[in-house]
Amino acid sequence: MTDTATSRIRLRDRLSAALPDGRVIVDTDITSSYARDQAVWAPAGVPIAVVRPRSTAEVQTTVRICIESGTPIVPRGAGTGLSGGANAVDGCVVLAMESMDAIQAIDPLERLAIVQPGVVNDQLRAAVAKKGLWYPPDPSSAPWSTIGGNVATNAGGVCCVKYGVTRDYVLALEVVTGLGDVVQLGRRTAKGVAGYDLAGLMVGSEGTLGIVTGVTVRLRPAPDHQRTIAGYFDSVGDAGDAVEAVAAAGLTPSALELMDRRCLVAVDEWKGMGLSADADVILLGRIDTPGSVGDDEAARMSRCFTGAGATWAAVSTDEAEAEALFAARRLAYPALERLGPVLTEDVCVPKGRVAEMLRRIEAIGVEHDTVIANLAHAGDGNLHPLLIVDDGDAAAEDRAQRAFTAIIDAAVELGGTVTGEHGVGLLKRDGLHKEFAPEVLAMHHAVKAALDPHGILNPGKAF
Amino acid sequence: MTDTATSRIRLRDRLSAALPDGRVIVDTDITSSYARDQAVWAPAGVPIAVVRPRSTAEVQTTVRICIESGTPIVPRGAGTGLSGGANAVDGCVVLAMESMDAIQAIDPLERLAIVQPGVVNDQLRAAVAKKGLWYPPDPSSAPWSTIGGNVATNAGGVCCVKYGVTRDYVLALEVVTGLGDVVQLGRRTAKGVAGYDLAGLMVGSEGTLGIVTGVTVRLRPAPDHQRTIAGYFDSVGDAGDAVEAVAAAGLTPSALELMDRRCLVAVDEWKGMGLSADADVILLGRIDTPGSVGDDEAARMSRCFTGAGATWAAVSTDEAEAEALFAARRLAYPALERLGPVLTEDVCVPKGRVAEMLRRIEAIGVEHDTVIANLAHAGDGNLHPLLIVDDGDAAAEDRAQRAFTAIIDAAVELGGTVTGEHGVGLLKRDGLHKEFAPEVLAMHHAVKAALDPHGILNPGKAF
Repeated sequence: MTDTATSRIRLRDRLSAALPDGRVIVDTDITSSYARDQAVWAPAGVPIAVVRPRSTAEVQTTVRICIESGTPIVPRGAGTGLSGGANAVDGCVVLAMESMDAIQAIDPLERLAIVQPGVVNDQLRAAVAKKGLWYPPDPSSAPWSTIGGNVATNAGGVCCVKYGVTRDYVLALEVVTGLGDVVQLGRRTAKGVAGYDLAGLMVGSEGTLGIVTGVTVRLRPAPDHQRTIAGYFDSVGDAGDAVEAVAAAGLTPSALELMDRRCLVAVDEWKGMGLSADADVILLGRIDTPGSVGDDEAARMSRCFTGAGATWAAVSTDEAEAEALFAARRLAYPALERLGPVLTEDVCVPKGRVAEMLRRIEAIGVEHDTVIANLAHAGDGNLHPLLIVDDGDAAAEDRAQRAFTAIIDAAVELGGTVTGEHGVGLLKRDGLHKEFAPEVLAMHHAVKAALDPHGILNPGKAF
Repeated sequence: MTDTATSRIRLRDRLSAALPDGRVIVDTDITSSYARDQAVWAPAGVPIAVVRPRSTAEVQTTVRICIESGTPIVPRGAGTGLSGGANAVDGCVVLAMESMDAIQAIDPLERLAIVQPGVVNDQLRAAVAKKGLWYPPDPSSAPWSTIGGNVATNAGGVCCVKYGVTRDYVLALEVVTGLGDVVQLGRRTAKGVAGYDLAGLMVGSEGTLGIVTGVTVRLRPAPDHQRTIAGYFDSVGDAGDAVEAVAAAGLTPSALELMDRRCLVAVDEWKGMGLSADADVILLGRIDTPGSVGDDEAARMSRCFTGAGATWAAVSTDEAEAEALFAARRLAYPALERLGPVLTEDVCVPKGRVAEMLRRIEAIGVEHDTVIANLAHAGDGNLHPLLIVDDGDAAAEDRAQRAFTAIIDAAVELGGTVTGEHGVGLLKRDGLHKEFAPEVLAMHHAVKAALDPHGILNPGKAF
């Protein structure tokens, strides 16, 4: 037996001896199912073991054993990530946090909830809704993705355009550090400036600076009545102009989503909704400003759509119709996945460059002979061009990879960022080097080395 | 001449040679006026020189010379800080950023402004207001304090209870690092998760991790019509109960301020407003929800005040009267300063503990025979007990110091933090050690060492 094989067996034995029965999984049929997230084409290694802890103490035990043995740890929520951030590296322990799924407290007075990282986003939202409260971050993965995973990637969603991203809702974190300590970061109070914002630093760090074992989130009162404004357009460019017009009018929509023809056709083919007969591109806006002021804002948004060239625009008066349009938005991604592997982009550009960026994406698709569908949180400039390739077509894959890179380059050129809400993971590391100067990357390395001196926390991810 | 004296002269000469005329000040009559902020009793050292840069390049030149010579740098905005964060350390260069005061861009479409750090808060607010926009953070020091200083302390203000603090409005920073590099941190887009949140980490770090030379702030549309709700109470405890009742009712005021009898008397003695004849404690609330929904919320807040024992409560129907009440709130601090040196506390406790904390502060004042006036951003639990001492009374100073410590201990015991918005500076370092575990302090030291390896950036501050 090789030295490596011996040391792997020794590590598994140490973990099994230190943790309760059932926590350590070494059966490769099972461990392989924990080896990657949903990022198409991101490489994944082979883990030595998967640990499914049920307490902070068990996480700490695992981290300490990995520190002593120099074993990389890859933390993982539900595995719905789209950048490869949760993909195993060879010889690692995957720390699957799904079983730490307790909602420990919901405090309506302080408007906060305390949860374990494995709580599913939609479960938290449902639990706080029962108390008249709202946890805004709503990534498309909300029915499956965990709060811990949302924290790791600073997840966004439809509501961000008005209500911000995960970091805006994280008050405090419990973290097992790169030294194997359990620490409380952040605070429970509404305000606080004691010390560095280490809780904020952990959010979006993709498990490279610490393992999150507890999350205190800020809540809001239940949202007000939403009005839905729909606009149909002949081109993505016109729809992009409408997004700019909404911003220029000083409106703050609570959602402003875009679906292009490829999305509409895919949804129609799957669910027979008949959307693509009416429009090439649909913009879906929402306004939740209370009362007649909100009614007025909704009418103004509709006029912005018309002014930018919408073939049809209206404030919906039919709740069921409005819900159907947002249902189509939610179905677009799985509808496209039915057509083949989907490589999901996640660039974000300034609002004034949305139209230009959408036009460039269209041109890039033509240039690289790649089918690109556009789903977008258009209101905040966060675009998700979806590159679709026939399964197993290596030449098409290669063209799609080049289109992917061209989209990143265009976003950076337009003053944007390579990732709006999915994280860098593995897929955006090259892009990050285009966005950041070497001095900024050096600061990342310095912070990483400071907080993970043994270099075991999700190595090779995020930058 | 001693070695130290020689090296000081050499440093002054190097700075003077490398920077344009007038930037380097060595006249001790002037440099001494740059040696401390407004924190009573915080120690201040003697600077070697004050540098007043006019460009990022001049800051970089200064930092590089200080790195080479191992000279500490203390950055400084307007010197309105209340924790000693800008106080000179012996042998330092004070970097006075006041001359870098250009508003470089205001972009209504992207809702952002780009400013140099020396821009005064009120100047920025006035400039963006002309374009129908709003920069919310509104510390009491807004007429004098700079955006750079606000970033250093993550400044808050009256609006925070609904609109958040400085960090919530910082999109991007230009920073001269501890290695003397100029870097761009953060982004211009509405969303972005590329890399660690180093911009957020800089906010509130009190100049210990980098020198901020440019700030891109997020703006909001101009605020809606504000309704003012006033409540008069017989005790701080009753007023605290009213704060809890407002939170429990699910209301989100855009301001909820408290002034106790000592504040009211001080304002009356100065300005003859006659407030103290009517009330022992005043709560001032604001609601900016649009339309009839906001009217209803204002009425509900008034009922919360009455239900908690207000002797009088009403929604103001008189704009001038409402403005006078908020003017009194702004005057309270300078009115108290007329009575003697004011040691300003800045604890923040959970909303449900405000009443208890106010009662404890009252008891601490009695126990330590110290006059304590209470001004508070009560709605977010951020209390500013103001300890007032006769000038030169050493025994009273000593008692006040003990009361100060007792207040910090009480706040931590109630689940609060030692500083809500003023920063740690020098005055709260002991308190921080009560709030943070040794492992968390070790993380601070590690991050500090990573980003300021020469240890020259505002050493000894913040933790």
